[in-house]
Amino acid sequence: MPASVAAEVPPLQPTVPPRPSADAIAALIAELEPWLGERITTARGIRDQHAHDESWHRPAAPDAVCFPHTTEEVAAVVRACAAHRVPLIPYGVGTSVEGQVIAEHGGLSVDLSAMDAVVAVRPDDMDATVQPGVTRTRLNAHLRATGLFFSVDPGADASLGGMASTRASGTNTVRYGTMRENVLSLTAVMADGRIVRTGTRARKSAAGYDLTHLLIGAEGTLGIITELTVKLHGLPEAVSSAVVAFDTVGDAVAAVIASIQYGLPLARIELLDALAMAAVNRFSQLGYAEKPTLFLEFHGTHAGVKEQAETMAELCQEFGGSDFAWATREEERRKLWQARHDAAYAAKQLRPGTEFLATDICVPISRLAECIEATQADVKESGLVAPLLGHVGDGNFHLVVMVDRDDAQEVATLAAFNERLVERALAAGGTCTGEHGIGLGKRRYLEAEHGEGLAVMRTIKAALDPLGIMNPGKLV
Amino acid sequence: MPASVAAEVPPLQPTVPPRPSADAIAALIAELEPWLGERITTARGIRDQHAHDESWHRPAAPDAVCFPHTTEEVAAVVRACAAHRVPLIPYGVGTSVEGQVIAEHGGLSVDLSAMDAVVAVRPDDMDATVQPGVTRTRLNAHLRATGLFFSVDPGADASLGGMASTRASGTNTVRYGTMRENVLSLTAVMADGRIVRTGTRARKSAAGYDLTHLLIGAEGTLGIITELTVKLHGLPEAVSSAVVAFDTVGDAVAAVIASIQYGLPLARIELLDALAMAAVNRFSQLGYAEKPTLFLEFHGTHAGVKEQAETMAELCQEFGGSDFAWATREEERRKLWQARHDAAYAAKQLRPGTEFLATDICVPISRLAECIEATQADVKESGLVAPLLGHVGDGNFHLVVMVDRDDAQEVATLAAFNERLVERALAAGGTCTGEHGIGLGKRRYLEAEHGEGLAVMRTIKAALDPLGIMNPGKLV
Repeated sequence: MPASVAAEVPPLQPTVPPRPSADAIAALIAELEPWLGERITTARGIRDQHAHDESWHRPAAPDAVCFPHTTEEVAAVVRACAAHRVPLIPYGVGTSVEGQVIAEHGGLSVDLSAMDAVVAVRPDDMDATVQPGVTRTRLNAHLRATGLFFSVDPGADASLGGMASTRASGTNTVRYGTMRENVLSLTAVMADGRIVRTGTRARKSAAGYDLTHLLIGAEGTLGIITELTVKLHGLPEAVSSAVVAFDTVGDAVAAVIASIQYGLPLARIELLDALAMAAVNRFSQLGYAEKPTLFLEFHGTHAGVKEQAETMAELCQEFGGSDFAWATREEERRKLWQARHDAAYAAKQLRPGTEFLATDICVPISRLAECIEATQADVKESGLVAPLLGHVGDGNFHLVVMVDRDDAQEVATLAAFNERLVERALAAGGTCTGEHGIGLGKRRYLEAEHGEGLAVMRTIKAALDPLGIMNPGKLV
Repeated sequence: MPASVAAEVPPLQPTVPPRPSADAIAALIAELEPWLGERITTARGIRDQHAHDESWHRPAAPDAVCFPHTTEEVAAVVRACAAHRVPLIPYGVGTSVEGQVIAEHGGLSVDLSAMDAVVAVRPDDMDATVQPGVTRTRLNAHLRATGLFFSVDPGADASLGGMASTRASGTNTVRYGTMRENVLSLTAVMADGRIVRTGTRARKSAAGYDLTHLLIGAEGTLGIITELTVKLHGLPEAVSSAVVAFDTVGDAVAAVIASIQYGLPLARIELLDALAMAAVNRFSQLGYAEKPTLFLEFHGTHAGVKEQAETMAELCQEFGGSDFAWATREEERRKLWQARHDAAYAAKQLRPGTEFLATDICVPISRLAECIEATQADVKESGLVAPLLGHVGDGNFHLVVMVDRDDAQEVATLAAFNERLVERALAAGGTCTGEHGIGLGKRRYLEAEHGEGLAVMRTIKAALDPLGIMNPGKLV
């Protein structure tokens, strides 16, 4: 076979522009202030608010912050930034967890929180169009009278624009999908100020490249999302939740695999390990067994939920699961899931006063038990305090690792641990991040995960953002 | 607002290379023949087999055809074609319906049908890895003992590589999704011969740009798919099918909308109009009412299927649906769905000896009834014979329009009709193609559908295929 040629046309390489000069920033502001008025600012307090997200990554403030109200305003801001070679960092509500909104290279933070209108809700089509600053709880509050809901639920009350940009998911992904499955169409401003509407409201299409999915998960490095059309789901007639404890993580995961193979359409399948259960008990004054535990939720008709629950109880029993602790009334269910949602905060209380890193890997479910067990052994050996929480129906789990960011030794231990964790995920055919994204924290793993694919991503970045102004330094 | 600047760096534009000279083809063959041997040919018969698909588009033969056996062989072929500036046209089993495999610009047809190994089936993870030449029925035959199935079912027994490249779907998309939702990961050879593996076997990932979805639906214009990992689904415990007739298309669609809002997880919801039912009756010697009719299928547990079916029967009754004609035994069900699958051939018998064009639009379901009604009126006014078939759960429908390709007047009538149909779909917030793709047939509608998005697609094409050798003239 000939190994001949090809790279006569060398692939494009992305640019990272130099940090903007004070003059460039002044010129940009002079251009934008006449029409943005107080909606562009260099005030220290506002810049500091936009310097960090919810991660442990070191903050870095942008040179200025602006608050556009329309897609056209975003487009004008992008054009002005392009002219002055000033980086743009899209900002929703700042709940990212890998440093996606940190202005490492300076520039203008584009805060989209004021673009928070629910533009349209269409019950017959079960979709809604929203501006990017709408948060998931606000959308669901808006939907209350329709019998519909928006399903994607990361821990934080994130904005939908941010959730799309980081390809977010949450506890009920196993049934309803991630942002990848729940966004029908986007409006985005590209790096040259062009306004693009990707996709349509049709449920499927075979017309051209899938720009919607290219922008979902791009972390603002290709364009700024200014409108989204998302799928809605019908509120189930009946909902029931249960908690069931196992002797080992392996048993719990075996029950999950069996339920998926059986085709049980569980809405939520969450795993907490023994340490996480201890933290939850202490934080929420509860009395759960401090063993590996599944939190389950069933959605369907009354008869369907009953049937699912009975089948799941049988499957769990086969693997040594305890009797189910049921929560059927809404108040009980809310309490149960609040305990689950508070688990990260509960974990933090195990070692107050420290930062915490939430790791995030995802593997094929057949490899999940061994991956978790190897990780728990690693935690022990490393001397870390690290309760484990998992969206196990997806093969995705997190460890909440406490760390004193000023203790270099501890930071190094954590970094080495995280590196081994990622290596373990990749070796198992998985990914370095299931739902937190790349941002600043996972850039070093992209090449190991994607190989030549990373070069293709870089070519796309270079072609669509030749000046390199869109959230530089993130992702690629 | 400043309208200032931006396009200082003009976006890249795709190239279409000149038709390769006889010398270029001879040089290419001289380079490839020593190691491909009889697996590269210029024989007239083979070239003619690769000149057409199942569409009415005029055939155009490639200059040569090759039959690689491995990803590495495909990569070497691509590198050689790049060196000699010879276009490549990936070819699976030739069942595309918009001319995707027609060699309009000459070049080398890369026939992947010999790459037909099922590489791995992993029941615990409910996924399978296959080479691109594996057809959907062959994969399902292979899976028979596992209790799992691959869900995507376009009419033809297409290859999975082709199905991914055209973003195919089929009758059970409403429950199980299209190729977009069912491909986890791809191996592809890019235009410069690089081998890229996109995605992982993890069920979700937030790691980098979504190259998997960029290649799905790209119709071979960005790369050649040489391996796919696809999701599998558990065979349901119980399956039941039914046929129900309505007085009007509007009533049938209203029943469908009600079922979706109710959250009924129907596996199949197919609509045939009165003319299509007449064709089916005649073709398959059946006695169905010749009225707008839904073909339904329910998957689940025995109790679940019973509950779904009862609810659906009630909903249909509300909209004047007839009593359900049931098919519960496998043989009856096979007969019922065979009639549905044969509908396109049945339609053709309405006017034997002509070609037929299967149109393909998809709209938000709330607009489906009006869109179908306006289209039926247009059919009547245009004097066309055009039974209608729809995957109505997705808002997707086809008309099978008979046409004498040698009658210029008739071709013009059909072209004008198709144009109005697409305009109607776009005006309703839909797409010019739900599942057939762009190929040669729908290129003219891409700009109307995507606006500036088409320019973004062209930039991506130009960046990833700077020589323009990957299936030139298709899609962008």
